Amino acid sequence: MSEFFTVRTPPDAWQLLRQHFTPHIRVEQIPAVDALDRVLAQSLASPQDLPEFPRSTVDGYAVNAADTYGASSSLPAFLTVIGEVAMGRTTAIQLGMGEAALVHTGGMVPAGATGVVMVENTQTVDAASIEVLRPVAEGENVIQIGEDIRTGDPILAAGHSLRPQDIGGLLALGITSVTVAVPPRVAIISSGDEVVAPDQPVAPGQVRDINSYTLAGLTRRAGGEPILYGIVPDQREALEAAAARAHAEADIVVLSAGSSVSYRDLSVQVIAGLGTPGVLTHGLSVRPGKPTIVAVAGGKPIFGLPGNPVSAMVIFDLMVTPTIRLLLGATEQPKQQVQAKLARNIASSAGREDYVQVRVEERGGELWAVPVFGKSNLIYTLVHADGTVKIDLNANGIREGAWVTVFLH
Amino acid sequence: MSEFFTVRTPPDAWQLLRQHFTPHIRVEQIPAVDALDRVLAQSLASPQDLPEFPRSTVDGYAVNAADTYGASSSLPAFLTVIGEVAMGRTTAIQLGMGEAALVHTGGMVPAGATGVVMVENTQTVDAASIEVLRPVAEGENVIQIGEDIRTGDPILAAGHSLRPQDIGGLLALGITSVTVAVPPRVAIISSGDEVVAPDQPVAPGQVRDINSYTLAGLTRRAGGEPILYGIVPDQREALEAAAARAHAEADIVVLSAGSSVSYRDLSVQVIAGLGTPGVLTHGLSVRPGKPTIVAVAGGKPIFGLPGNPVSAMVIFDLMVTPTIRLLLGATEQPKQQVQAKLARNIASSAGREDYVQVRVEERGGELWAVPVFGKSNLIYTLVHADGTVKIDLNANGIREGAWVTVFLH
Repeated sequence: MSEFFTVRTPPDAWQLLRQHFTPHIRVEQIPAVDALDRVLAQSLASPQDLPEFPRSTVDGYAVNAADTYGASSSLPAFLTVIGEVAMGRTTAIQLGMGEAALVHTGGMVPAGATGVVMVENTQTVDAASIEVLRPVAEGENVIQIGEDIRTGDPILAAGHSLRPQDIGGLLALGITSVTVAVPPRVAIISSGDEVVAPDQPVAPGQVRDINSYTLAGLTRRAGGEPILYGIVPDQREALEAAAARAHAEADIVVLSAGSSVSYRDLSVQVIAGLGTPGVLTHGLSVRPGKPTIVAVAGGKPIFGLPGNPVSAMVIFDLMVTPTIRLLLGATEQPKQQVQAKLARNIASSAGREDYVQVRVEERGGELWAVPVFGKSNLIYTLVHADGTVKIDLNANGIREGAWVTVFLH
Repeated sequence: MSEFFTVRTPPDAWQLLRQHFTPHIRVEQIPAVDALDRVLAQSLASPQDLPEFPRSTVDGYAVNAADTYGASSSLPAFLTVIGEVAMGRTTAIQLGMGEAALVHTGGMVPAGATGVVMVENTQTVDAASIEVLRPVAEGENVIQIGEDIRTGDPILAAGHSLRPQDIGGLLALGITSVTVAVPPRVAIISSGDEVVAPDQPVAPGQVRDINSYTLAGLTRRAGGEPILYGIVPDQREALEAAAARAHAEADIVVLSAGSSVSYRDLSVQVIAGLGTPGVLTHGLSVRPGKPTIVAVAGGKPIFGLPGNPVSAMVIFDLMVTPTIRLLLGATEQPKQQVQAKLARNIASSAGREDYVQVRVEERGGELWAVPVFGKSNLIYTLVHADGTVKIDLNANGIREGAWVTVFLH
């Protein structure tokens, strides 16, 4: 048995992977309106000032601010109304001293005006004149040209995941098409003679395939495109054929192999046969997830994940998600986190990272992380958990009541 | 001008909406493998024990634990190997006293065995016998029948959003089809004579439509299906026709109207014309977002949002997202949050909720919320923000250094 001849810490394994893997980010141009949650592949600068004309933020009268200085209810400023600015149009109005023009929220502030007085602070005298009851400061109630964003200002950086308001910001500038990263193709191969498809009848001794679908969901959440290669029998030729096809077709290959030593040995041999440099790590100092294989062949990362669902998910989060993000050129991680107080002591061994599944509960206005203990073979340990708490490589555990970061599922 | 004759606090407006609106959750049955992030519409119990047979968690020998008591390297227990359990098969093996059977990780533990000794803790004597070097406890290295989940145990509750591991948990039990809520249809109407489609040329005085697309993205994130009705001219007949069509076709109607008082008056009249009980609130004690209309007509909620993008997004988060979640029967909110320290004082007025856009920065291992000040008319205020901090109705502001909850965008 060739188990664990090169056990490494997760940071060491990641560094080794990065040394042998240069991500090539594929890109495509798509309409901005379809780009929600996609990763931008270009850094963008504003092609124009926004707004392109001075806009009123209120309903009122464009005025020369100096005309209103000292105005009050008892001593109003008297102004001549010379017109109204129509919405959505440029205006030929040019204000002179003592003049005002009716303007609506979002309307253009005409030339010669330096502020807008809210309609509530005016009084109509007759069709052609108003009294202003309060002074207006220079620039008051006006968005100046370029106040939102200026020509040439950086707007969004390559690697950013586009949110609803980012798409709004692009469209506001007339940017209707963007270059984004193509979702990396992640091949998922399950193996194990005891594993059957979920829609098939199970005989005693058999279990249904969980990992193909859990890992497909995690792939989508990370921004990748899962490609399922189904359940491959635990025979060398079958596994070699499936792995070779996946390696040719996908950007990342994930094997979720049977969990016994002989199966793991088979996985490592099949992965080693895919190309150079081959297996970088066979064994990670992580609990759960020790029997992990990290490899690179022909410039593509390959991961052999433990067969049990909790380990598979922990290692996917730890190694595969960051690899998908690399291939997207993403500068942000998709995982959300919350701070919570640990509800009971967790023991750990120094020299190993521990990932503990927790429920997050609110108690008296505080969040608490309650460990969900369960064997790493149990899918319902994950179903009952809200997230994961990491215990660092060199910690001996975490005490009850300590603040921890929970990475939400 | 009929502005703000019924200004209400957000909790009052929400309560009023709930009094007049009974959500009817539409459901559909879909394959479990396609149900990622969908909201479950049925509470599910386990149809079976998982596992259905006792499984080994290690590679080793199934034994009668009592046979190994007191075993050590110097005084091993000698056992006769009577066979091997094949993966994925039931086994006819029945262990007697002093007997062992080879078993692989995930394999069935045969009848008569009460524990599994890891292969590392054994020594092969000959083809038919081993020495056990450490005692095995009852149940050690065995997952018992139903240890993951038992027949009839509740597994997932109606209203839960399905995560990757939840789908794994369903498939593990052979549940390949689930009843989920149909995404509510959210009609989005933009209006304003100054507004043009983002792919059209803009003349001076015109601005591009932002809100249709920002609100569509927020709708998707909340689990709804946006339907864009485009930009409607600010004429009563045109707006009435669009609103009537949207009201007939969608589950929720959102008007993002022009921002001047006359446009808002037009919106309120058009909304009031859609049916009873009609307008519930015209004005919310929120900054930004005061000029909000909340209405119900013919059992459907209708929202008139302020025209400027920051207000529109704040009010969407506050009122429309929870309405979409109601129509999904969702028990969880989609928004993620982090705790951070406020980087500077924020003033507020009691009697009004304030929503402040913030950037989240890490400084010396702590998260800080840095207010992004900007007029609520500026889309780049939102683009530069990571989330929102709420200042409660009765607070006069929040001091620098206080811990605040940031609702992430």
